[in-house]
Amino acid sequence: MITWNNLDTIPAYQELLKVAPVELAEAMTGEKGAERVRKYSVPMAAGLSCNYAAKQVDDKILEVLAKLAEETQLAGKFEALYNGEVINTGEKRMVLHHLTRGQLGEAVVADGVDKRSFYVQQQEKIAELANKVHSGEITNAAGEKFTTVVQIGIGGSDLGPRAMYLALENWAKVNHTFKMEARFISNVDPDDAAAVLNTIDVARSLFVLVSKSGTTLETLTNESFVKDALKKAGLEPSRHMIAVTSETSPLAQSDEYLAAFFMDDYIGGRFSSTSGVGGAVLSLAFGPEVFARFLEGAAEEDKLARNRDMYANPAMLDALIGVYERNVLGYQNTAVLPYSQALSRFPAHLQQLDMESNGKSVNRFGEPVDYVTGPVIFGEPGTNGQHSFYQLLHQGTDIIPLQFVGFRDSQMGTDVVIQESTSQQKLCANVAAQIVAFACGKADDNRNKNFEGGRPSSIVIGEQLTPEALGALLSHFENKVMFQGFVWNINSFDQEGVQLGKVLAKKVLAHDTDGALKAYSDLLNI
Amino acid sequence: MITWNNLDTIPAYQELLKVAPVELAEAMTGEKGAERVRKYSVPMAAGLSCNYAAKQVDDKILEVLAKLAEETQLAGKFEALYNGEVINTGEKRMVLHHLTRGQLGEAVVADGVDKRSFYVQQQEKIAELANKVHSGEITNAAGEKFTTVVQIGIGGSDLGPRAMYLALENWAKVNHTFKMEARFISNVDPDDAAAVLNTIDVARSLFVLVSKSGTTLETLTNESFVKDALKKAGLEPSRHMIAVTSETSPLAQSDEYLAAFFMDDYIGGRFSSTSGVGGAVLSLAFGPEVFARFLEGAAEEDKLARNRDMYANPAMLDALIGVYERNVLGYQNTAVLPYSQALSRFPAHLQQLDMESNGKSVNRFGEPVDYVTGPVIFGEPGTNGQHSFYQLLHQGTDIIPLQFVGFRDSQMGTDVVIQESTSQQKLCANVAAQIVAFACGKADDNRNKNFEGGRPSSIVIGEQLTPEALGALLSHFENKVMFQGFVWNINSFDQEGVQLGKVLAKKVLAHDTDGALKAYSDLLNI
Repeated sequence: MITWNNLDTIPAYQELLKVAPVELAEAMTGEKGAERVRKYSVPMAAGLSCNYAAKQVDDKILEVLAKLAEETQLAGKFEALYNGEVINTGEKRMVLHHLTRGQLGEAVVADGVDKRSFYVQQQEKIAELANKVHSGEITNAAGEKFTTVVQIGIGGSDLGPRAMYLALENWAKVNHTFKMEARFISNVDPDDAAAVLNTIDVARSLFVLVSKSGTTLETLTNESFVKDALKKAGLEPSRHMIAVTSETSPLAQSDEYLAAFFMDDYIGGRFSSTSGVGGAVLSLAFGPEVFARFLEGAAEEDKLARNRDMYANPAMLDALIGVYERNVLGYQNTAVLPYSQALSRFPAHLQQLDMESNGKSVNRFGEPVDYVTGPVIFGEPGTNGQHSFYQLLHQGTDIIPLQFVGFRDSQMGTDVVIQESTSQQKLCANVAAQIVAFACGKADDNRNKNFEGGRPSSIVIGEQLTPEALGALLSHFENKVMFQGFVWNINSFDQEGVQLGKVLAKKVLAHDTDGALKAYSDLLNI
Repeated sequence: MITWNNLDTIPAYQELLKVAPVELAEAMTGEKGAERVRKYSVPMAAGLSCNYAAKQVDDKILEVLAKLAEETQLAGKFEALYNGEVINTGEKRMVLHHLTRGQLGEAVVADGVDKRSFYVQQQEKIAELANKVHSGEITNAAGEKFTTVVQIGIGGSDLGPRAMYLALENWAKVNHTFKMEARFISNVDPDDAAAVLNTIDVARSLFVLVSKSGTTLETLTNESFVKDALKKAGLEPSRHMIAVTSETSPLAQSDEYLAAFFMDDYIGGRFSSTSGVGGAVLSLAFGPEVFARFLEGAAEEDKLARNRDMYANPAMLDALIGVYERNVLGYQNTAVLPYSQALSRFPAHLQQLDMESNGKSVNRFGEPVDYVTGPVIFGEPGTNGQHSFYQLLHQGTDIIPLQFVGFRDSQMGTDVVIQESTSQQKLCANVAAQIVAFACGKADDNRNKNFEGGRPSSIVIGEQLTPEALGALLSHFENKVMFQGFVWNINSFDQEGVQLGKVLAKKVLAHDTDGALKAYSDLLNI
């Protein structure tokens, strides 16, 4: 029997507030630090592992976190979710993105269809189209092959697919699965679309319009922008555009598109990278086989998230440690620091995934909570960040927990030996060094050169950023965010906070304003 | 007589702690909100203005902030800085980046030369080279024109120049001053350099190697990477490489470069966009005239930062309001939200500028301070952010102050009318709407749809993102960060926090490790 209770009513949480904290600098120094590194590790899918030795936890704290996992019924709630309960209570919807990549539990039937079959069917349709585009069976009116795919979408229809594309672009090139270059138009700023259109050959471009509702203003505006450009180039837009939308949207049955692929209300935008939202652009760019491998990695990682044992469930463990940092230790941010240039936009995706899911002040029943919820997420790739904001992370007045990601091998395999080490070795040496520098610090009589340490981090380590590893990484963070939402007793699957701005923007455009809104509109000459 | 005192010893700060806070939602509602918008605005250079109506301040709080400015001698300290006092006490250096774009006070002589003349001379040399490259007087060995410029640098040698390039790339294209495409290699991750090299014609590329010390490991490694590629293509590296460095660096007098341009120790990396660090790549990409216009905007804005009257000094005012938010209201982050796709990487530059400058825990004398200093800076362009992390900004449990930037006109002028408004109008309507939504909120009986408001923001508004406007914007934030450092009594110009990681990384590469560091090195197969 699932029950939904606020965090501050849970006995284990009250116990957690009383447990002695870990002196991280001390715990990570010397041989016992090495022992922690060997011990505090949990395997993930696709050869990844998550090492949490440098987190401010010890056996006792972990024991209480495991109790918290029990008492908040995390495993049971996830089970309810993947078996099709209406977990998104605000919008009265099921939450089914896991079904886009596997079957974790029972068959889920909605709208009269088996949802797993429905999502698989859409993937097959996408694969078929992608193969025809690649083989030249589908071409432009002049019979030329398409060379570029342009995704038009915003938020979840942009950040995830864009981050995944960048993550695999160079991998695909060296592995000879690169089919088409992908570009992205997202912002309503006209310069965004104009700049992309200026640097592609529109005649040989295929545009993927992504909007679940078919009513997203930015996306429809950019669609018109693109259609204008196609017409001006003497091209027929319907030969160049694909829609990814829901079956009930105005875009679904339009003959203005070459094809339409469907998702539904049970897949939130920020969880949609493994649906057609990511599937169309990634299958066109890299081939359906690569997209299938990406799904496989995510599916394998999802299975680990079912483990009732917290110590064997990386997403659950990560979630609980994050709650401890946020609600007991009082840390407000988390920095995501991938030591992989290919993951340059992965932090921006996690920023949406986490902050839009868990940036909430009311519980599932609409009652204000008396504790903090989702943290601010930000980040840039290492080693770049080391030469930028790491100064504050090391010596600032606030402690920021850190999420590192690192791979033993590069994607492209081109490297150079300087001062007896390769660039990849330098990259890995830097992430190892940073973890220890943050955790242990270093005393110096010159206080300006003193490092207090005690700054917690964890690291996900893999062999190489392959499609499977990327899928596993994505799934890990999706499930982590979900588990944290369960612990905080909030609904991680709606986003009412984005509505007010939309309403007011419409008023501005209708010149239906007064007070400060009118004054700002005047300033901006609207 | 300048005196350096901790913030908590300043009478006005103690007074500030006692002043009644502003109920922002109430203050911004109705006609009095409109009145605030008209009143709380300060002109900036290049036609920009800074509107702070939606900040949590009123006449009384501003009055105490003005006192704080007096008592912390902000104007006097800036004057001392630009007249050449050793303000960077940690490294015992002057702070002279303002001289790269103008002469704010007395002549500053160092190393036997007038520094303003020295920087101007370097700019002239850069302009001369750029003109020769553009005219075809300097070509590759085959006599072909260079078409691409690749900056090799990290941190301040990357983020600022990259953000400025992206900010003006499309402006230059439509204004017919676009000369060469620019690319950037920064990360020691070998995939970064390999990916850039795979997508350019190296034979027609000019590489700008940027390292003040000439010893930055990432940059030297990437230089070797590039030289390897040039040699493999049968090209002579010295015909393709330019150095921007200090006169005392190992790169300065090398015949391995086509030319070398100089900066010096008085220009910190994160303040170096207006020196040769930004000058070489931007002059090559857009022409020296565009770079000169960028400097002009920065110089004009610098002059405003000299104003002793806080109300007429946008950087000082912004700095003080930020201190109020950080130290009195207790906010830990600031989100930078430009409603301009061209400013997509401007937040990443400000992140370094601010967090590396003011992420400190000790005062100028190396004594720990008992108050918080620099905030975490993060951000993405609007409207993209609206569909991502704004949920947390609107309804999360923490309040995040917001820095908006908006322009009345787009850069490229290509636009489309949908639902009776252009994309640019939609963009502007959205930023106006967001400011009011954050400030005023909106009550709803359904608490999940309730917006508490009270979330402060300011906005910099301009006509268009021109080179002058960009220069003014950059200068504004540089000076703001400097003023905040003065208020907090910290040294904003060193970065000792980046050292420990470097030392430990070297140990890892030398296999000179034990304990946790060895354990992590083993995990990463180093």
